[in-house]
Amino acid sequence: MAGFNKTDELGLLKRLHSDGEQLTGSDRRGFLKNAMAMMGGAAGVALAPSVLASDNLPPNVPSWTRSLGTGVVTHPYGMPSKYEADVVRRTVPWLTADPISSISFSPIHKLKGIITPNGLVFERYHAGVPTINVEEHRLIIHGLVDRPLILTMDDLRRFPSVSEIKFLECPANGGMEWRGPQMEGLQFTHGMLSCCEWTGVRLSTLLAEVGVQSEGKWILAEGADGAAMSRSIPLEKAMDDTIIVYAQNGEPLRPEQGYPIRMLNPGWEGNTSIKWLRRLEIGDKPWYQREETSKYTDLMPDGRAREFTWVQECNSVITSPCPENPFKGKGWYEIEGLAWTGKGKVKAVDISFDGGVTWRPTQLKGLVLSKALTRFSIMHNWQGEPLLLQSRAIDETGYVQPTLSQLRQSRGVNSIYHKNSIHTWQVTESGSVFNVQLS
Amino acid sequence: MAGFNKTDELGLLKRLHSDGEQLTGSDRRGFLKNAMAMMGGAAGVALAPSVLASDNLPPNVPSWTRSLGTGVVTHPYGMPSKYEADVVRRTVPWLTADPISSISFSPIHKLKGIITPNGLVFERYHAGVPTINVEEHRLIIHGLVDRPLILTMDDLRRFPSVSEIKFLECPANGGMEWRGPQMEGLQFTHGMLSCCEWTGVRLSTLLAEVGVQSEGKWILAEGADGAAMSRSIPLEKAMDDTIIVYAQNGEPLRPEQGYPIRMLNPGWEGNTSIKWLRRLEIGDKPWYQREETSKYTDLMPDGRAREFTWVQECNSVITSPCPENPFKGKGWYEIEGLAWTGKGKVKAVDISFDGGVTWRPTQLKGLVLSKALTRFSIMHNWQGEPLLLQSRAIDETGYVQPTLSQLRQSRGVNSIYHKNSIHTWQVTESGSVFNVQLS
Repeated sequence: MAGFNKTDELGLLKRLHSDGEQLTGSDRRGFLKNAMAMMGGAAGVALAPSVLASDNLPPNVPSWTRSLGTGVVTHPYGMPSKYEADVVRRTVPWLTADPISSISFSPIHKLKGIITPNGLVFERYHAGVPTINVEEHRLIIHGLVDRPLILTMDDLRRFPSVSEIKFLECPANGGMEWRGPQMEGLQFTHGMLSCCEWTGVRLSTLLAEVGVQSEGKWILAEGADGAAMSRSIPLEKAMDDTIIVYAQNGEPLRPEQGYPIRMLNPGWEGNTSIKWLRRLEIGDKPWYQREETSKYTDLMPDGRAREFTWVQECNSVITSPCPENPFKGKGWYEIEGLAWTGKGKVKAVDISFDGGVTWRPTQLKGLVLSKALTRFSIMHNWQGEPLLLQSRAIDETGYVQPTLSQLRQSRGVNSIYHKNSIHTWQVTESGSVFNVQLS
Repeated sequence: MAGFNKTDELGLLKRLHSDGEQLTGSDRRGFLKNAMAMMGGAAGVALAPSVLASDNLPPNVPSWTRSLGTGVVTHPYGMPSKYEADVVRRTVPWLTADPISSISFSPIHKLKGIITPNGLVFERYHAGVPTINVEEHRLIIHGLVDRPLILTMDDLRRFPSVSEIKFLECPANGGMEWRGPQMEGLQFTHGMLSCCEWTGVRLSTLLAEVGVQSEGKWILAEGADGAAMSRSIPLEKAMDDTIIVYAQNGEPLRPEQGYPIRMLNPGWEGNTSIKWLRRLEIGDKPWYQREETSKYTDLMPDGRAREFTWVQECNSVITSPCPENPFKGKGWYEIEGLAWTGKGKVKAVDISFDGGVTWRPTQLKGLVLSKALTRFSIMHNWQGEPLLLQSRAIDETGYVQPTLSQLRQSRGVNSIYHKNSIHTWQVTESGSVFNVQLS
């Protein structure tokens, strides 16, 4: 078995000592000069002065290098490090009358890239997470069809499958902020948002199988949870890109996400993507179920309600800095965030350092996929100046993320849902970050 | 709070009863006719006869619909359903002398899409998984550089980051199969394979910061584990696409994968992607460390060893059916699998039903990314005939996955590593699937 290499240990310590002596004075200025020289372009290298702070003493060979760790048999299903115990979903106790019908928020301030790991995908349910026996669960497709069907989960897996990376967002995301800044951190202002690779069968494939009759225009999707959560889905969406999902980031769908199967309506408000899906009924008109009349409609200033407001329109937020990720000292930082739109791809994201007076383009990083989270980034050398940070996303249809006042002008302040306006973080001279709204 | 809707329950039961009566005789033939009619194209709808088996009786409203589930506060970090308890990493006890220096295999027979969820990424370590305190960990960059550096993990996060979906594979994947078919299932023949979205800082960014001297041509990467696992990496790779990774599928890197940081050399054998990375030393020649001399070299028939065989060449395997996923009765199935290459993108995957005598093209599904897992798929109406299933991948460089005899001719049978030859599954008349090798 591999043991510790004594010779190497001594060699390393010697080298560390030698290096440590060099990390002072002129060298420090050398680093900064180098960092600045490379910042000619927007994507240049950015080394913060703190990198050379005097508390960065060379470490000794640590205890974990002097000992054996844990073996492979100890974690058949892996978990995060105990040092990341704060990277968890969180709830807001007062948000709903009971935690059995509530929501948990993804820690998006701690996440990178565009994939949300399965353990941290936000949850919303109306009667708790049911524990469903996959062997007993069935999907029933009936109504205005030529050949009604009852499918086992094994049956479903025999159809051709698709895998797509799509965001999922509750339309109430940001809903507490209509009337003023209420939540302290990014996890709660924007954390009803996740993005996974979803695998399943296109609903259009199943509908071809049952044969939708000519008068069939709507589909009732019904969950097997205690709320029998249900929504009316127009046939056009079902034939476009709806997926009956059974896997999430590769593995079987998680219980909180609808195990064993859920609907996924890419780009649409999350509650239409019915979880624990048990029944699809094809009809000629919407059903006007409880969760699309008393809830998930938008109360306008004149007292009327907008209904069937399915699409999650273009939105964005800066994830670093944010209240949970303040600046720690002066120097270079990567300012980055997430943008998304239910209408296709994000085309561009601009950033403002002065509360929307002037704007600069950011770089879109990595994959830019339709109806998926998209990362944007810009380097910034922060020298202690106060900032009013904003991001403004534009999607491929030309839709521009509105300001809060624009959104209030058209929708008033009675709404809970679909608040996609430009968000503001105030950065103080100390580097602290606060959730504010500009008048 | 949302309760159960009594009216709906009665309505549902009535409808189910009505549907159930229709699921016999002529309708069953109708379904099949429909399914067959739609199979004109390779991507047509495929309904298996079993969908209408008589044991598919309409279920009653199940217990989980008649009760409340668990609330949001009960799972700050989510886990899979108890009904998927068999979707776990597994080990082969005899593979190494001790589980502290061993490997676990991803359950790739149960996974879909291209992302491997973090809890199921295969593991390989040489002295166990260390428990590293992120606050105390440092990355040291020194040697033939102008400005040596010691970075905290917070420092590292201030550099511009990249997020990329890349596969990771142990070069020993399939290594037990050089001399004959030894492992019974796909998890063990090909499970040293995973694919994640990795986030971190390009090594080239850090090297620009320290200033590599002109004689600097190689980099020693050293881990902080008890084995001080280390490999020599040529500067060309480091300047090309190597990433110093701190996040995996969005969240902080997992302990088994190198928490808090690891190297990632996309497309290269997994052990070069040093985990628990603590030190990068720039030198003028390779170090010839233990794990690149006595191990991770390929013993040729003439007794010489190939060294620095970094690239994982083009490979593929059918994931369904496989020994763990047999055919359950006649009818249509989606035959699918994974292909990958360390040289860029997969260009095409062919499939043979007759042990390589004839080949048919498959469809590449979803994202086709450089140095990432790629899904291929073809529909097949299995009528009980025995099959010898093979897949053969071709990458964008024109490299064609070799047959086993081609590989043996050039490499002999002494090797453990880099066995990327065409794999054969034998499907018997009962639908069972066996790992075989053709002479």
